[in-house]
Amino acid sequence: MRILVAQLNPTIGDLEGNTKKILKTLERARAKSVDIVLFPELTICGYPPEDLLFQSTFVEAMEKCLETIVHDSSRLMIFVGLVRRNPGPGEKSLLNSAAVIHDGKLIGFYDKCLLPTYDVFDERRYFEPGQRPFVCELKGKKIGVIICEDIWQHAGFVGGTRYARDPVLDLVPHKIDFLLNLSASPYQFQKPDTRVKVCAKAAKTLQCPVILCCQVGGNDQIVFDGYSVYVDAEGNLRQLGAGFEEDDMIVDLDSPACPCTFEYDPIRDLYSALVLGVRDYFYKQGFKKGLIGLSGGIDSALVACIAVDALGKENVVGLNMPSRYSSTSSVQDADDLAKNLGIALKRISIEVPFEDFLKMLTPYFEGRGPDATEENLQARIRGMILMAFSNKLGLIVMSTGNKSEMALGYCTLYGDMCGGLSVIGDVRKTQVYELARWINREKEIIPKSTIEKPPSAELRPDQKDSDSLPDYEVVDAVLQAYVEDYLSPHEISIKYGIPIEIVLDLVHRIHAAEYKRRQSAPAIRVTKKAFRVGRSYPIVQGWF
Amino acid sequence: MRILVAQLNPTIGDLEGNTKKILKTLERARAKSVDIVLFPELTICGYPPEDLLFQSTFVEAMEKCLETIVHDSSRLMIFVGLVRRNPGPGEKSLLNSAAVIHDGKLIGFYDKCLLPTYDVFDERRYFEPGQRPFVCELKGKKIGVIICEDIWQHAGFVGGTRYARDPVLDLVPHKIDFLLNLSASPYQFQKPDTRVKVCAKAAKTLQCPVILCCQVGGNDQIVFDGYSVYVDAEGNLRQLGAGFEEDDMIVDLDSPACPCTFEYDPIRDLYSALVLGVRDYFYKQGFKKGLIGLSGGIDSALVACIAVDALGKENVVGLNMPSRYSSTSSVQDADDLAKNLGIALKRISIEVPFEDFLKMLTPYFEGRGPDATEENLQARIRGMILMAFSNKLGLIVMSTGNKSEMALGYCTLYGDMCGGLSVIGDVRKTQVYELARWINREKEIIPKSTIEKPPSAELRPDQKDSDSLPDYEVVDAVLQAYVEDYLSPHEISIKYGIPIEIVLDLVHRIHAAEYKRRQSAPAIRVTKKAFRVGRSYPIVQGWF
Repeated sequence: MRILVAQLNPTIGDLEGNTKKILKTLERARAKSVDIVLFPELTICGYPPEDLLFQSTFVEAMEKCLETIVHDSSRLMIFVGLVRRNPGPGEKSLLNSAAVIHDGKLIGFYDKCLLPTYDVFDERRYFEPGQRPFVCELKGKKIGVIICEDIWQHAGFVGGTRYARDPVLDLVPHKIDFLLNLSASPYQFQKPDTRVKVCAKAAKTLQCPVILCCQVGGNDQIVFDGYSVYVDAEGNLRQLGAGFEEDDMIVDLDSPACPCTFEYDPIRDLYSALVLGVRDYFYKQGFKKGLIGLSGGIDSALVACIAVDALGKENVVGLNMPSRYSSTSSVQDADDLAKNLGIALKRISIEVPFEDFLKMLTPYFEGRGPDATEENLQARIRGMILMAFSNKLGLIVMSTGNKSEMALGYCTLYGDMCGGLSVIGDVRKTQVYELARWINREKEIIPKSTIEKPPSAELRPDQKDSDSLPDYEVVDAVLQAYVEDYLSPHEISIKYGIPIEIVLDLVHRIHAAEYKRRQSAPAIRVTKKAFRVGRSYPIVQGWF
Repeated sequence: MRILVAQLNPTIGDLEGNTKKILKTLERARAKSVDIVLFPELTICGYPPEDLLFQSTFVEAMEKCLETIVHDSSRLMIFVGLVRRNPGPGEKSLLNSAAVIHDGKLIGFYDKCLLPTYDVFDERRYFEPGQRPFVCELKGKKIGVIICEDIWQHAGFVGGTRYARDPVLDLVPHKIDFLLNLSASPYQFQKPDTRVKVCAKAAKTLQCPVILCCQVGGNDQIVFDGYSVYVDAEGNLRQLGAGFEEDDMIVDLDSPACPCTFEYDPIRDLYSALVLGVRDYFYKQGFKKGLIGLSGGIDSALVACIAVDALGKENVVGLNMPSRYSSTSSVQDADDLAKNLGIALKRISIEVPFEDFLKMLTPYFEGRGPDATEENLQARIRGMILMAFSNKLGLIVMSTGNKSEMALGYCTLYGDMCGGLSVIGDVRKTQVYELARWINREKEIIPKSTIEKPPSAELRPDQKDSDSLPDYEVVDAVLQAYVEDYLSPHEISIKYGIPIEIVLDLVHRIHAAEYKRRQSAPAIRVTKKAFRVGRSYPIVQGWF
């Protein structure tokens, strides 16, 4: 039995384009004498389609695409994901389904039973849970099929939710020969090998191989990493799909593949996720060129490296916008970086408009000393110049703020927060350094002095981040523990030995910056709890 | 039997402050010889608490508040809303409950059965549905209690969801003497009297009076209008709580109140909702003063009126920032408006910085004519000045864009979109005119010429909105039909007799502006489908 695991990168809502991809995969499958083609969850519309699902013409069009696929399914058994109308009773009128097709005929549908409604998932908003297992036969083999979350409960990896049912256990009495899973499981730092564990657990329970097909690609803030999985009946990993790209993984259940290990490099994968997130944000919208404000600092340097790998050096433009407070070394670092990357760099001083704004505003602010106002002015003049280039030349501005800054509000709304996409807005500052060192692992791409100098916004004389913030090791420990792991300030203080006043101050800043983040550019999500997507806090609240 | 319907305005997450409000209400209730006090849904934490619920200390603290309330409940029966931990099985670990307390004792809990998970609601993210009715007794009377959504299904007013259960019908066998409902039901244009219909339907089915207590107040984007309801056993409206303010409504079931009619003025209520939304956004955060860019146009004029009613004229500052394209009449209109409202007005020309930027950027843009870049520059310079005042003087900038502009992207990101709160971002342009005429119903507050001149952004010579857009009557018809009523472009074209090319162009613009709206200030929600809160569309998508 040969199975093509079609790890595709669909575009959300591009039903026609996605269907073409599916049909081409079927051609390749026939050319490779495959029996079964397994696609990812919601193949036809891409995951997550969000409120496009509320447009009835959208779901109808998906049903039309399914007809085309059925029509083109000769000699194959196909498992393809789509949304369909719920023909039965239930709270919601849609189902998250797998259509099972065999040689020109639609055999039936499996409907996802476990509907994640936490973090970035809101499937209960749209879907009614399926109620029964689905088993079909091919060449005398019994095949079970489930969708994504259905397999996770069984391995105990579902946080904050205890589903009443376990679709893996529901399949036990059916004595299936192998299990197929259609998935769209988002990347997050240090998660990919969890998926292998989850498959292994189901394989051991069902005593049969498990093949899981993952969606790959970036969709707004969420990146899907691919890494489709084939484990044998003992739960040993046998094959792994490519990471961060489309892949046809052909599983031959009859010729035992060698055991395989997941050579997982967390930092490499983090970098790949960011590159893919950028590339798909641009290409899926038909944009080619990106613009980055290059200060000579480490954040914009990292973003420039990611942009070059995502878009090509000829499509990345750097803009260095020094002020009276920019150090000579920063300007030099920006030059060196641009040279190392081979990207165009333009330099525009912000002195003239800065002077003029100061002059214009001074009469209104008499008797008040300089404060964040003047710092924000500089950041906003830079934002304005970036946006003018973006408007005139059709470049997308890539915002360069990191997660630690976004958490604490150490950033200027409408200033350095400008941009269509926040590339590293979910990357903590300490991870920014790790990534920079990883980029430089063979040769110096990011200038050494960019990495070694103390972080500074250079918005007033001799400013250092450490004037306003604790060390980033402390900031990031609190950030991760509070935002990602839901520890309370007291638990954090004890666990990390950080004085409670410091923890409380940081937590207070995190909540006080909610209003800024509400207007931030969408950030590529790479941790288990990003801001905005999958995290929803009130701006006006009295808890902190 | 006397019932105090405590229509409170809690602050989200301010457990201590909200509990104080509850305790004070109990004092008033005892002073007024009341038997029962009925509070709104989630009284202790306010609705909606969002992801604060994932902090275990938050839910624990709420349980402590409940103890205080029980301790202070002598001589009263109390129905108070809170979140509690789910002691039973089920997918989620929390319940949306009503604690029932009598004279110093906690009698038990009713758990909300129907959990709305659509539009602005995402209760399945947090809560497990309750499974059973709750009936208790006082003075020989049987009392049923349910929470908000529980009563809506029965009247057929739940859109897009068909719950398997009907908590009103579940109460029929219990032959209750009256029904209490704890609610937090958001305001939307032309909705308030629906709530009366919903209560009437339940009253008729149960053949008993229904008393529904509504939360009131603004919480970020959502405004709760109050208007608590008492209908008799025949479904006749007997009493109505105040609109848009806190109220103690005392219902005496034994002395028949006169029938009462809901004198509902949609435009007055729309205005009141906006005023309350502004006031609570400011006051609940401890801010007093607002800043508005006053162009002389109708949008900023309307926002200024709302601001004055919300914050007082001494707390509103207008900033008029003319350019070479501002007409003399616009500048005059801004002056007249400020005079009519009695607010401070400052004038700062944007010419110098505009010239600076043009000179600075021209060398880079050679060979390219003027386009939106230069228009955006002007809007962004204004945004920068507003934000400088905000930073230096601690004023919150109130963004003045309307929903029609936000829908079509006819606005400048980081320019006129700047602000902490978008006051009329969910008000269509045609409604802006209605509100302006309503404001002027007795005397001219908004200058007549502001209302009568053709709408213009004044960002290039003799510009009119109609150069770039169809009439606002057409824009708004399509906007409402597409965004709020989910009609397809073809259905819209037929229903309103608008050529399909125009409808498709507008729909295309709505989707293309998604990236801008993702970074817009939160807008006070007043229609049944606002942008952002309760509406989630991908930026990158291939459907349009």
